[in-house]
Amino acid sequence: MKSVSRLAILLAATALCAAAPAIVQAAPDKALEAKFDAMISPAEMDGWLKTLAAEPNHVGSAHGKANADLTLALFKSWGWDAKIETFWVLYPTPIEVAIELTAGPGAPFKATLTEAPIPGDETSSRIKDELPAYVAFQGDGDVTAPLVYVNYGMPADYDALERLGVSVQGKIVIARYGAGWRGLKPKLAQEHGAVGAIIYSDPRDDGYSTDDVYPKGASRPPQGFQRGSVADMTTFPGDPTTPGYGSTKDAKRLTRQESPTILKIPTLPLSYGDATVLLRSLDGPVAPPAWRGSLPITYHVGGGSEAKGGGGGQVHLKVVSDWSLKPAYDVIATLKGKVAPDEWIIRGNHRDGWVFGASDPLSGHVAMMGEAKALGALYKGGWKPKRTIVYTSWDAEEPMLLGSTEWAETHAEELKTKAVAYINSDSNARGFLGVGGSHSLQHFVNEVAADVTDPQTGVSVRDRLRANLAVQAAENPTNPRAVAQGRLAADPTKDLPIEALGSGSDYSSFLQNLGLATLNLGFGGEGSDGGVYHSAYDTYEHHTRFVDPGMAYSGALAKVTGRMVMRLADADTPVQRYGDFADTVSGYLDEVKRLAEAKRDEAAQRTRLLAAGAYRLADDPTVSRGDPAPLPASPKLDFGPMDRAVARLKASATAFDQTLSTKGATLSSAQKKRLDAALMPLEQKLLRDKGLPFRPWYKNMIYAPGRFTGYGAKTLPGVREAIEERRFDDAATYIGLTAEALTDYAAGLDAATAVINGG
Amino acid sequence: MKSVSRLAILLAATALCAAAPAIVQAAPDKALEAKFDAMISPAEMDGWLKTLAAEPNHVGSAHGKANADLTLALFKSWGWDAKIETFWVLYPTPIEVAIELTAGPGAPFKATLTEAPIPGDETSSRIKDELPAYVAFQGDGDVTAPLVYVNYGMPADYDALERLGVSVQGKIVIARYGAGWRGLKPKLAQEHGAVGAIIYSDPRDDGYSTDDVYPKGASRPPQGFQRGSVADMTTFPGDPTTPGYGSTKDAKRLTRQESPTILKIPTLPLSYGDATVLLRSLDGPVAPPAWRGSLPITYHVGGGSEAKGGGGGQVHLKVVSDWSLKPAYDVIATLKGKVAPDEWIIRGNHRDGWVFGASDPLSGHVAMMGEAKALGALYKGGWKPKRTIVYTSWDAEEPMLLGSTEWAETHAEELKTKAVAYINSDSNARGFLGVGGSHSLQHFVNEVAADVTDPQTGVSVRDRLRANLAVQAAENPTNPRAVAQGRLAADPTKDLPIEALGSGSDYSSFLQNLGLATLNLGFGGEGSDGGVYHSAYDTYEHHTRFVDPGMAYSGALAKVTGRMVMRLADADTPVQRYGDFADTVSGYLDEVKRLAEAKRDEAAQRTRLLAAGAYRLADDPTVSRGDPAPLPASPKLDFGPMDRAVARLKASATAFDQTLSTKGATLSSAQKKRLDAALMPLEQKLLRDKGLPFRPWYKNMIYAPGRFTGYGAKTLPGVREAIEERRFDDAATYIGLTAEALTDYAAGLDAATAVINGG
Repeated sequence: MKSVSRLAILLAATALCAAAPAIVQAAPDKALEAKFDAMISPAEMDGWLKTLAAEPNHVGSAHGKANADLTLALFKSWGWDAKIETFWVLYPTPIEVAIELTAGPGAPFKATLTEAPIPGDETSSRIKDELPAYVAFQGDGDVTAPLVYVNYGMPADYDALERLGVSVQGKIVIARYGAGWRGLKPKLAQEHGAVGAIIYSDPRDDGYSTDDVYPKGASRPPQGFQRGSVADMTTFPGDPTTPGYGSTKDAKRLTRQESPTILKIPTLPLSYGDATVLLRSLDGPVAPPAWRGSLPITYHVGGGSEAKGGGGGQVHLKVVSDWSLKPAYDVIATLKGKVAPDEWIIRGNHRDGWVFGASDPLSGHVAMMGEAKALGALYKGGWKPKRTIVYTSWDAEEPMLLGSTEWAETHAEELKTKAVAYINSDSNARGFLGVGGSHSLQHFVNEVAADVTDPQTGVSVRDRLRANLAVQAAENPTNPRAVAQGRLAADPTKDLPIEALGSGSDYSSFLQNLGLATLNLGFGGEGSDGGVYHSAYDTYEHHTRFVDPGMAYSGALAKVTGRMVMRLADADTPVQRYGDFADTVSGYLDEVKRLAEAKRDEAAQRTRLLAAGAYRLADDPTVSRGDPAPLPASPKLDFGPMDRAVARLKASATAFDQTLSTKGATLSSAQKKRLDAALMPLEQKLLRDKGLPFRPWYKNMIYAPGRFTGYGAKTLPGVREAIEERRFDDAATYIGLTAEALTDYAAGLDAATAVINGG
Repeated sequence: MKSVSRLAILLAATALCAAAPAIVQAAPDKALEAKFDAMISPAEMDGWLKTLAAEPNHVGSAHGKANADLTLALFKSWGWDAKIETFWVLYPTPIEVAIELTAGPGAPFKATLTEAPIPGDETSSRIKDELPAYVAFQGDGDVTAPLVYVNYGMPADYDALERLGVSVQGKIVIARYGAGWRGLKPKLAQEHGAVGAIIYSDPRDDGYSTDDVYPKGASRPPQGFQRGSVADMTTFPGDPTTPGYGSTKDAKRLTRQESPTILKIPTLPLSYGDATVLLRSLDGPVAPPAWRGSLPITYHVGGGSEAKGGGGGQVHLKVVSDWSLKPAYDVIATLKGKVAPDEWIIRGNHRDGWVFGASDPLSGHVAMMGEAKALGALYKGGWKPKRTIVYTSWDAEEPMLLGSTEWAETHAEELKTKAVAYINSDSNARGFLGVGGSHSLQHFVNEVAADVTDPQTGVSVRDRLRANLAVQAAENPTNPRAVAQGRLAADPTKDLPIEALGSGSDYSSFLQNLGLATLNLGFGGEGSDGGVYHSAYDTYEHHTRFVDPGMAYSGALAKVTGRMVMRLADADTPVQRYGDFADTVSGYLDEVKRLAEAKRDEAAQRTRLLAAGAYRLADDPTVSRGDPAPLPASPKLDFGPMDRAVARLKASATAFDQTLSTKGATLSSAQKKRLDAALMPLEQKLLRDKGLPFRPWYKNMIYAPGRFTGYGAKTLPGVREAIEERRFDDAATYIGLTAEALTDYAAGLDAATAVINGG
């Protein structure tokens, strides 16, 4: 589901970690890992990819069911205890879709809304089961209204529109993909009174401006469009009608109307071939510079017709969907642990695509299959992990993480007791390793990355990433973040940072609702699938030609992720280094303090400029741009509780890390067991029952998807977003709640330290 | 000639000025200025504009001669002692021009190279005397070669090309307009072995991406192209065959081949309508992200055909010119001063355009005419300025500042003795006042700007600019320069900074060769002429519809510039505040020190990354991008001489400003005369005979056009450019020379202070 440059992810990471004492652990079993590596076959993955991506495999499709059955059969054949768990999920599919320009320059015009086969891509011609343009969980409707261009459709865009004197009330908006998560675009449009929404892919963002278009190159061709979910992910993921509990066959459900995460206005995606006609029809103000893509037109905002009696574009938008329940088939496979069978290492990747899904998700799924086959063979050959390994092939991730969320909600109590960690992957590409997740695992990630060889350069994937961060810093000397990461990367004694996780793939429930230690991994940055993302051109042909020829990086992913699973399953003492988490949180606290200051300064500045009439004086009077709204004065927040909690956390983390380092090798079996028991619930201390404002499902006080970023993470979200949105009472409340969570976490660490000390 | 956003100029200014003691001066004659203002008539300017811009008026054209005669006659009728000084300048005009795509996708194709009339713009249909596409002082030729796209054609672009493995040796380059001065593009192409150059206007920079295209909006239509000079301005301006002396009728001349400023390769400008076909034909690597404009194509670099036996675009480029001498008619008009007739206040604007030249230069020229008419009327009415006023209507600015440079070179010795200041303007538009020049005049500029009312808002043009800087800062909180200027603008007790001058208009000789106090002024930032700059669509119709309807800002320019002239002509005591100059230079010194450090860091970093093989590891191996070239280790420079000179300058400037402030009102007439005599040669102390490296014509050690920016200024150029280009021996030499110049300047100030003190 999620497709962003892994490199970008890494460069976006906000925390830089300091050197910390090396932790003495039982060394990983390198001989076992060598055997594992020898069984990883990119050629085999290529074969699986071809089979799984042969036909459209969206939720409820015939090939989707076939893929579930095949995956189940393979896992069984590899020696796993495997089964399918079926959920019954609401999943609307399009019955009728239409976008027409009914008035204005270029009218009448009817958009295609289907993706014609591409010469030379045989898969793209298998359109029998392919669905036309749609986005999941929009609100059906049939509307005709003037069109307004809203750039990326994010909050700042609406502020700019207001200053331009253009309202979207009663209009249909057209937004371009990018900048914020897809689902926010129709949601914000709806909140601003729009009656419909269209989301198109501008060629500047993933079309001809980025590379030759498919089939000559990897980028989006004029007729390609991006499907996707627009359910209100930032409120909660999973089935919109079963909030917080599993969509089992007999589950009690909200009605579609009652569900808070199903949108109310009709919404469709659009290709840039068709969008050009719609955008060209607009009148009104010329769009601000940052709003302009690379279509060969002057971008206008629209909204001019009413004021001037002109005739800007008017659009007819219609969506009728089949709102029936569809089955989602999660394949759950287990290798039982011999020492601690009730300690689970869970690994997952989704299996469903929007159409053929070669890159997204199958490139990651076949890596997971490779791991599973190799682990099964090791198991058959006599290796028995200490802990239980659970492999999960999720269905229905694309519509809104349905397969994983419903499973996690159904098994929540058991998972909270038994799960040690959840490791996720999704689509994969050539390039650099990108990792996000719980920062207590940051050093563990670095150790694993140092032991896997990059297919293209022959150095470790960590060394390649380190080199890249150093070069990025050299080539972007005015980017403070790149420079900071480059400085870090230049010191080989330091770990590379992992990012904080937002949402957009199946880790969300595990991290943000259940509070488990979580990682999400993938390679990328080269040979991106961005140009065919969620289109009918994300095919075996495209993936193996442009994204990962020879599936070398699916192989590398399997080696990274498989190692993590084996090391976590067999670890003699904890792999975590809690000082990294403490340092990271300390960095986040510095950020939110600076943010609070910046928001105070901004409010004062705005007040001063408004009083001076500066906006009016600075404006071109021929372009209507009114004053920006005044900002309420910002109080000075008391960060004392956070300061004290972070200081306590640092002390407790340092004590634990040092104690484990000096005494870890001498622990008795009973101590180790007690230590596991003490640490397994530790990350859950970060949850607060109250959850985050407007969205109690999200309970993690450290990591959340942003309310206005979607996929993008917000750290210390209760505090940070309250400051960003100037909800200063909430900020104070969540300073308290977050401090509580961190203090509980520190107390948990102290208890674990006591176990090592013989407690 | 020069066309950039005035706002951008101001925001680009590097020096921020501090508050300084107010200087007590004889107050300007506000009653006189009110009379002057009352005679400024935008409607009259509109009429002059219509007449002057009625036909093509390039150098040597019939209408150009008629405009000279008309200007002369009007000045005389207004009471000025006026004459025409004729120079005989080399000015090549096109006889035959051709650009054809002869091989590759899209071939054969022949570019238009003419600008068809625009419906509704009657002027644009007067094409009888219009010249086709050409740039002045390219090297004629007839070549056929593969095409390579070089982005803006600046040095960093060639570094990037080299890493992509693409050479321009023996090729024709196509560069887009922007980023650096036009003439650098063919010059650098030539130095890299190219046999021809094409410069096109990408729609991202001034076409449909910026506004609706003409006639619907102000921006460049698909068939519009930008003419201009490509003589090597950064070596010296003026007639390429008379370096350093006047192009009088009998002047001894270099041959065309001997001239160092005439290029050797054929070069033509191109419209984006035609460029699309050429760029689409290219193969080879996809252009780096920053190189991509907004044509609806994937930008490729070219150069792929040889390596792969493919067939990228091949181009035939032909230019044949008439290299005969043409007459340039400078109109020189004088109002004699009654007290100090040998102290001259000089004011100039050029009169020649590339075609009709309505915005560039006539919008500024008619403002100057308005001033001249009003000053003439005041003179006739009895006002006799203390000092002599010289108004200059330059011809032949467009081909390379010919009219002003040849006049200044011819009269150099007299000017060095008599000129108090030179005040320049050029094209003018709606918006904000932008001023560049000698920083000793910064406070004077602020005082004048506070006394002229902005036509659109009714506040002073300074207050409007102040508001704009404050709003820019608020809206660009991550731009350090915007924030610094905003902080300054927020304090009404502080002056706004003026920018340093590079080149691109007629002030160059006065400031950089003769060392006179110089100012260059214009309004802009709204209703830009950028979209028709140097094209046949820069017409009366375009200017009065989009750039300055009603000529209100030509009126405002006349009020600003006329005030400056009157105040300088009548000033009882010096208007300069030298502390502003000292503070500004001190800021420049801080900048070059930081630059030296950054260059040292960069070299060390590059060495480290090369040794670690980091570039290779960070590279996508499917995209050839070799290691960057190693950088020689940078020595630590001794800035001691500059530190001492700046400290001395600050002390001398403070002493002068304070002494004048306390004793200025009590000076005797004899003292005032001696003070004038002491200060008139002061700015000339900034010159060193040796001039700058590679270009001895440029003698000012503080201000110069950049060798690799062209129009853009480099301050402390001998030092700064030596560091930028890693000529560290030159840096040491010019630290010494610049320190000498500043010390001489300080000594001159000390002598002036002694005069005030009764010396």
